[in-house]
Amino acid sequence: MAIHEDNLAFATIEELAALLAKRNISPVELTVLFLQRIDRQNSAVNAFLTVTAELALAAARRAEKAFSRKRGASRNRNPLLGIPVSLKDNLWTRGIRTTAGAKILRDFVPTADATAARKLFDAGAVLLGKTNMHEFAYGITSSNPHYGDARNPWACDRITGGSSGGSAAAIAAGLCVASIGTDTGGSIRVPSALCGTVGLKPTFGRVSVFGTVPLAPSFDHVGPIARSVPDAAILLGLIAGRDPLDPTSSARRVEDFRGALDKPLRKFRLGRPHEHYWKKLDSEVRRLAEAAVRDLEKHGAVVREVSLPHLIDSLQAATDISLAEATHGHQAAGFFPADAADYSKEVRQRLEAGEQITAVKYLAGLDVRKRLLAEFDAAFQDVDAIVAPTAPVPAPLIGADNVVIDGEEIGVRPALVGMCRPANFTGLPAISVPCGFTREGLPTGLQLIGRAFDESTLLRIAHAYERTHEWGQRHPRL
Amino acid sequence: MAIHEDNLAFATIEELAALLAKRNISPVELTVLFLQRIDRQNSAVNAFLTVTAELALAAARRAEKAFSRKRGASRNRNPLLGIPVSLKDNLWTRGIRTTAGAKILRDFVPTADATAARKLFDAGAVLLGKTNMHEFAYGITSSNPHYGDARNPWACDRITGGSSGGSAAAIAAGLCVASIGTDTGGSIRVPSALCGTVGLKPTFGRVSVFGTVPLAPSFDHVGPIARSVPDAAILLGLIAGRDPLDPTSSARRVEDFRGALDKPLRKFRLGRPHEHYWKKLDSEVRRLAEAAVRDLEKHGAVVREVSLPHLIDSLQAATDISLAEATHGHQAAGFFPADAADYSKEVRQRLEAGEQITAVKYLAGLDVRKRLLAEFDAAFQDVDAIVAPTAPVPAPLIGADNVVIDGEEIGVRPALVGMCRPANFTGLPAISVPCGFTREGLPTGLQLIGRAFDESTLLRIAHAYERTHEWGQRHPRL
Repeated sequence: MAIHEDNLAFATIEELAALLAKRNISPVELTVLFLQRIDRQNSAVNAFLTVTAELALAAARRAEKAFSRKRGASRNRNPLLGIPVSLKDNLWTRGIRTTAGAKILRDFVPTADATAARKLFDAGAVLLGKTNMHEFAYGITSSNPHYGDARNPWACDRITGGSSGGSAAAIAAGLCVASIGTDTGGSIRVPSALCGTVGLKPTFGRVSVFGTVPLAPSFDHVGPIARSVPDAAILLGLIAGRDPLDPTSSARRVEDFRGALDKPLRKFRLGRPHEHYWKKLDSEVRRLAEAAVRDLEKHGAVVREVSLPHLIDSLQAATDISLAEATHGHQAAGFFPADAADYSKEVRQRLEAGEQITAVKYLAGLDVRKRLLAEFDAAFQDVDAIVAPTAPVPAPLIGADNVVIDGEEIGVRPALVGMCRPANFTGLPAISVPCGFTREGLPTGLQLIGRAFDESTLLRIAHAYERTHEWGQRHPRL
Repeated sequence: MAIHEDNLAFATIEELAALLAKRNISPVELTVLFLQRIDRQNSAVNAFLTVTAELALAAARRAEKAFSRKRGASRNRNPLLGIPVSLKDNLWTRGIRTTAGAKILRDFVPTADATAARKLFDAGAVLLGKTNMHEFAYGITSSNPHYGDARNPWACDRITGGSSGGSAAAIAAGLCVASIGTDTGGSIRVPSALCGTVGLKPTFGRVSVFGTVPLAPSFDHVGPIARSVPDAAILLGLIAGRDPLDPTSSARRVEDFRGALDKPLRKFRLGRPHEHYWKKLDSEVRRLAEAAVRDLEKHGAVVREVSLPHLIDSLQAATDISLAEATHGHQAAGFFPADAADYSKEVRQRLEAGEQITAVKYLAGLDVRKRLLAEFDAAFQDVDAIVAPTAPVPAPLIGADNVVIDGEEIGVRPALVGMCRPANFTGLPAISVPCGFTREGLPTGLQLIGRAFDESTLLRIAHAYERTHEWGQRHPRL
């Protein structure tokens, strides 16, 4: 192979699509390269639970045929054709084991594809395998007692974040090009921040959740994890849209998210919430996030403070509602309490806690949700997006229960969920984009939260910021 | 007055509108007649909690001016102009006390009108007063410890049914022409069946609930109570439609419900549920309802059996959900537990029971709701409406805790709510139309449940049935 492996393993969808279109490399060669890398390096990060090598090679051969049918210089209008990807293991894949990181589902082989998965397959993407995750997506570390912990490629004694930890780790380690994850309380954005990838939680209803193992249905979102903002835009455009199989999916028009990035971004307004987001931050996270805001100002941002007073109440309300929804879902599926012994203690205790939530507390939580959404709506009269860190700390050590911020101990879970959950609670779109490395060499993430169904603006701002940094050129050495 | 009082007191909106248009009577004369009747007879039935005599006369004078502006033979296109009506006392009336039958609201004077009330006022209807009801609409008898029990005009030792008991009793007793009520678990239909009026619970979202004291928001409906099906159609057409003040109100086009009644009804299909509705019935109710079905067959109905297996589960699920929603609402309003001592024991106990419902039970109930709605949808592939009695018994005695059906004791509340609640749970439209008198001389009601937003079909079937009987000519003697 003439091209250096790193130039392929850490390339974006767009770069690889160009190489594939020019026949500089074939889909089969690319797939073999990634399968070999997984073979060599997955044990270091435990990013993949299932590697679908044979199916991947077959898909690569089909992509190869599709390329050879494309005669002449016709531009490749399907950038996913022949691109090796992964899927979080709570997205159904027909004929391929889908564990959701749970012992209870160790033998579950779906008879249908998740809609997002099917759309990727229809576009000719090559599935390398299913990625590790927090059990049932019900946790934020991706430490997994049943299948082994996902480990952060930047420091293998640290968590990837979760619950889509395997997806972010696989991209960061150059074991796949892109992935699809799910996000109920930060599960796309937190691992993206902690592993240095781009993670987008779309607007509620933007992407079908058909064929995902549900966690808390009014919080659950499917979205892309990628190496760059344009890649996330491409993936979102592919998986978005109304799906008859998901009654909560929206019939909103799916824009050309990738195309929107080429329009110049001039003046835009960013809101810094007075409450919650910028209060308790690790000093390195604060330094990098503040620098990012200054960078955004250089790119045309007018930054002002906005107020979202119900943010504080919303953290408990969102916890109450999601606890109840998760327990209800596991009861309705027949897993809980029937298979209680097969859960990790952590998830079992959370399901038990969900049984204790009263309906009036649940309904009071829905009132808080409405009030918070009204406050965000009001803020969006004045600003185009909210800016905040994605996580208040870089990746904690595996097994740590607490992190220390400003000398104060705080649980890993509330710390990592806290800044992401509001966008799940309100259904507003939110993106995490790499925001530089701490002095220890750990990645951090900058979060942008936008108006409902206005992912385009988030992607454009994130891309404007991303373009001025070379962080994507830095790769972990496993 | 040349026209006999009974011909006016028991006339329909349509009949009175014709007399008013022809100047056979004036709005002020009509209003005075009804105010005098209320003065003489309200003490027998306790239908009105507040009589707004001065405001009524002022409105009648305004209507009189509007009539005199209408020169020549121009047909009256606003049938409500000058018509004396009442409103259930849980509909806000600006400047007029609105108690919701509750001691807690004894001094509550709203600063805005309920949307349904405002639409009536805008049409020139004359408000005679606010009608008695079950405390906070949270009961099915209209027995009221704070303001006295509503009494059935057909037998004053019997309940009116509830919670809109005063509205139905006022119409039945000739104390107003029509009324607007609310229906959370049969509260429009049950008093209509027990007092011999027509009561329509529209589709959820069809009529704005803005300005009603809420009970269980996902079950609450505003709708007409009237002397005839055409009157109910006229009122529905007036109060229906999207309301920016009620985000749950639907933007569906409001049809000409009254006009639809003039189209001939030929063949139509009625479904008799296999489950629940036709099982436990008082023998007189059964005799009259079976006769009504035979009458409908004579009018072109093809009657077939339909199956709604989740009906049984739905009764408990609906109870759980509405208990929780009611308690949440009273907590959010600050009434409960702060003013616990000011509730009747019955309502207080129900609010306490609502505190005990868990969120997972609430969510499981929502699943049952979806399944039941799917079963109704499937049934409506085969039939145009479901037919059933409205209540399994005629009006019970005031103070009775139980009724006896087939030798079995059953609580008054589950008996009266049981056949109505499914339409609240699913949001499907349902009408109760008089169905003849028991040998004891008590009215009964026939219920028709229809497709979402297809009130027209219900009204047409009810009207075809109603036209062939003279029950509207029979009046109670107080």
